[in-house]
Amino acid sequence: MDLKKQKFKRVPRHIGVIPDGNRRWAVNCGLEKKDGYQHGINPGFKLYELCRDMGVEELTLYGFTVDNTKRPAEQKAAFKQACVDAVLELSKRDAELLVMGNDKSPSFPEELKNYTKRTKFGKGGIKVNFLVNYGWDWDLKNENGIASKDISRIDLIMRWGGMRRLSGFLPVQSVYADIYVLDEFWPEFTEEQFYRGIAWYQNQDVTLGG
Amino acid sequence: MDLKKQKFKRVPRHIGVIPDGNRRWAVNCGLEKKDGYQHGINPGFKLYELCRDMGVEELTLYGFTVDNTKRPAEQKAAFKQACVDAVLELSKRDAELLVMGNDKSPSFPEELKNYTKRTKFGKGGIKVNFLVNYGWDWDLKNENGIASKDISRIDLIMRWGGMRRLSGFLPVQSVYADIYVLDEFWPEFTEEQFYRGIAWYQNQDVTLGG
Repeated sequence: MDLKKQKFKRVPRHIGVIPDGNRRWAVNCGLEKKDGYQHGINPGFKLYELCRDMGVEELTLYGFTVDNTKRPAEQKAAFKQACVDAVLELSKRDAELLVMGNDKSPSFPEELKNYTKRTKFGKGGIKVNFLVNYGWDWDLKNENGIASKDISRIDLIMRWGGMRRLSGFLPVQSVYADIYVLDEFWPEFTEEQFYRGIAWYQNQDVTLGG
Repeated sequence: MDLKKQKFKRVPRHIGVIPDGNRRWAVNCGLEKKDGYQHGINPGFKLYELCRDMGVEELTLYGFTVDNTKRPAEQKAAFKQACVDAVLELSKRDAELLVMGNDKSPSFPEELKNYTKRTKFGKGGIKVNFLVNYGWDWDLKNENGIASKDISRIDLIMRWGGMRRLSGFLPVQSVYADIYVLDEFWPEFTEEQFYRGIAWYQNQDVTLGG
C-alpha cells in the first residue's frame, strides 16, 4: 500500500463520492431496480479502504436525498436499508462517522439517529460523512449557518454512472471541487476506476478561484 | 436559424457560462496574460446571439469573482474593463440585463452600478445575467435569502478551458445543472463548440434529483 501512496504526489484531503447507477446496473443484470442498492455496499467499503490506506483524511458518501424519497416505496425502502446496513458494517471498522441529513423527517432511518454527531468506531482515523435524507435546501436553510458545517471543503468529487452534475451534493463544500465523472455504474466499482480519478487529479491545480 | 432550432428538441431554458482560459490563450499567443480578457468579449456576443436565436430564455455569464480580485493589479484592471466594455456593447442590443455581485466593494466597477437591478435594452427579450465581483459566500450570506434570488435555476453549464469544476459559480442555481466542459480556451469560441454542448444536452435527462 505504501507503493500506491508514493505513486501520487497530491493526495486529496477530502473526497466526495456520488455512487450513481445502482438502478441502471440492476436493470442491465435482469434484476429489479430496487435490488441495485445492496450491490452498492461492498464498493463503498472497497473505496473506504483505498482512501484510508492512501491517507485521505475525510470521505463523504452520498447515501440518499430528500429528492430521492419521492421514488417508488419499494426503492425507498431498499436504499434506506442499504444505508443502515452500510453504517452497521462501518461500525466494525476504524472510522469517525457523521451521518448528515434531515433527521426530523420520517424518511430518516430510526437506526441512524444515534450517529448525527460524529462517532468514533474502532481506532477512529478517517472521517466518513454519510449523507442520509440530505437536502441541499435543508442544508442551506439552517438557522445557524449551514447544517453541514462539520463537513469540510471537498477537493475531489468522483461521480459514478456518467452524469455530469452535482444533483444537490453539498453545494457549499463543493464550490472549488474538481469533479471526475466515471461512466461505469457504481456496483461495478474497481480499484482501477478509483486510481484513474486520483491520477487525473494529479494534473489539476488548486487555485480556489484565485 | 429556424433550422438550427428544429435540430434540437430540448432547448435549455437557462444556460450558465464559465468563460475560462483567457490568460492561457494569451500566453499561447505570445501576449501578456492581461491581454486575454479583451479577446473574450466577442465570443460572449457570438454566444449571446446563438442563445437568443435558439430561444434560450436566460443566460448567465461569469464575469469576475471576489476570488479573482486577488490577482495582479494589471490583470484586475483588464478584466474589470472587459466587463464594462461588454455591458456597454450589450446596451446596444436587445436584452434584459442584471449585473450581480458585491457592489459595496471598491472592486465593483463604478460604471456598472446602474445595472444591479434588471434593465431592459432595446426590445428586451433574453435575460442576461452578468456576474461581476461575485462571491459564492457573499451570495449565500445575504440577510434575505440569497443575494442572487433574481437568477433562476440553471439547466446547462458550459465551461471553457478544460477545468471540471464550478469555481464558486452560483452554488444554489447550479445544484441540478448538467455541466459540459470544453477543452478549448474561451477566446477560441466557435459556434460548433456551442452546438456540441447543446447536442450533448439532448441526451441528459432532467430528474431534479428524483
